[in-house]
Amino acid sequence: MNLASAITSLTNPRVKAAVRLRDRREREATGRTIVDGARELLRALDRGIAIEEAFVCPALVRTTGASEALDRLRACGAAMTEVSAPVLAKVAFGDRSDGVVAVIDVPPDELDTIALPADPLIVVVEAVEKPGNLGAILRTADAAGASAVIAADPRTDLFNPNAIRASLGTIFSVPIAEASTPATIEWLAARSIRPVAARVDAPTLYSEADLRGPLAIVLGSEADGLSAAWDDPRVTSVRIPMLGTADSLNVSVAAAVLLYEAVRQRS
Amino acid sequence: MNLASAITSLTNPRVKAAVRLRDRREREATGRTIVDGARELLRALDRGIAIEEAFVCPALVRTTGASEALDRLRACGAAMTEVSAPVLAKVAFGDRSDGVVAVIDVPPDELDTIALPADPLIVVVEAVEKPGNLGAILRTADAAGASAVIAADPRTDLFNPNAIRASLGTIFSVPIAEASTPATIEWLAARSIRPVAARVDAPTLYSEADLRGPLAIVLGSEADGLSAAWDDPRVTSVRIPMLGTADSLNVSVAAAVLLYEAVRQRS
Repeated sequence: MNLASAITSLTNPRVKAAVRLRDRREREATGRTIVDGARELLRALDRGIAIEEAFVCPALVRTTGASEALDRLRACGAAMTEVSAPVLAKVAFGDRSDGVVAVIDVPPDELDTIALPADPLIVVVEAVEKPGNLGAILRTADAAGASAVIAADPRTDLFNPNAIRASLGTIFSVPIAEASTPATIEWLAARSIRPVAARVDAPTLYSEADLRGPLAIVLGSEADGLSAAWDDPRVTSVRIPMLGTADSLNVSVAAAVLLYEAVRQRS
Repeated sequence: MNLASAITSLTNPRVKAAVRLRDRREREATGRTIVDGARELLRALDRGIAIEEAFVCPALVRTTGASEALDRLRACGAAMTEVSAPVLAKVAFGDRSDGVVAVIDVPPDELDTIALPADPLIVVVEAVEKPGNLGAILRTADAAGASAVIAADPRTDLFNPNAIRASLGTIFSVPIAEASTPATIEWLAARSIRPVAARVDAPTLYSEADLRGPLAIVLGSEADGLSAAWDDPRVTSVRIPMLGTADSLNVSVAAAVLLYEAVRQRS
């Protein structure tokens, strides 16, 4: 390993700089975030993300995935710093650790960075607040072969470390963009992508709607539903049946039900 | 309120007894657990659960749901104790609070407590470890009108406060039982309920399987999949297509995809 001597001090300036990235303002000011976990890091490397720095605790590198991540980091010449287990625990975001934590540059997330296939299947999630929900939606969108996820007026930063973890790193394999709701609606319209919005009071069952062709599945926040901007004649509303006592599904579960019905209809 | 004077001490014995219920061993030894949140408490009251004690901080009771929960607690003669905000924060399990936290008796959870309709739709989840996943499955099972959820060889206690919260209290509206995997398989067979198990390598697509009639959707743990006991000629295996880079769905998302496909086919 091209390592300097191991850092054991929790007050080391580079350690402190990485720890500050737990704060959203710091992530937005620096354009950087934390990736923690071998699987997540491998998907970032597959995407060609720039690695600013990697902290490694060799004693904690125990899985083949973690070893592979270290080999890949070395191969791309990333700056690697050996740290003690307490220092790694301090910079790691999740509870578990594969012995490696990286500081990366946040990738571009503008709408015009998204390249679309012929019949795109897109997920739009409005006003998403919990990074864990965003990550869960990304994981399902990846599994369902979605073309992109658009966060409209999000209330979290997309590359929040908790979103990265909850996505299992698929945040690096599914194209993702952030935009205002009006810009999202215009972007879809300009590409003739039909928005189909989930609403609890829609008259049409989701399974009776046509979910083939260029399609965007649109989900509102659990607290507030969709904003008034989606009351638009170009938007089709559909309902997922609620047959029990609760009045809504978790937003990532609603996304899964709609995405897989689209996959079924399109296959 | 039939209150004694407000408790402000974090070392009050009743407060300490409630706090000890954060520990699984204590919950299992006492047969009690914590319900935190008005919506969750209202669903427990609807189920007729015995309330051992309720801690109330009047200054934090701000929603109509919380007021309704208090009225219902009074109406059923529950022992209610006024506490200061710091004491409530200490006994509350989640981050948020509706100003009321209750200690309840854990309801019975044996297989023979489950009453079934004519064409039951059941979810079996094996070796579930995260209470949040169990709660999420219960919330979706409620929404899809499932008849019951069976936790086979669970690695969490069913009425873990995090499961109660993640279920939004639907843990009290969906029948739930705990059993060994062999007992679960025999219970299903004795009732002619067809087990359909999700496996990543099954040749049959879930949407091409017949999901009508008496049915149990069977899900393994994310870490280990299903145990060998499910390699049984009476069990049909189905596959949810994985079209991206990740190799599995979250277990509660897989449950949702299968449950709603069953709902679609049965309607």
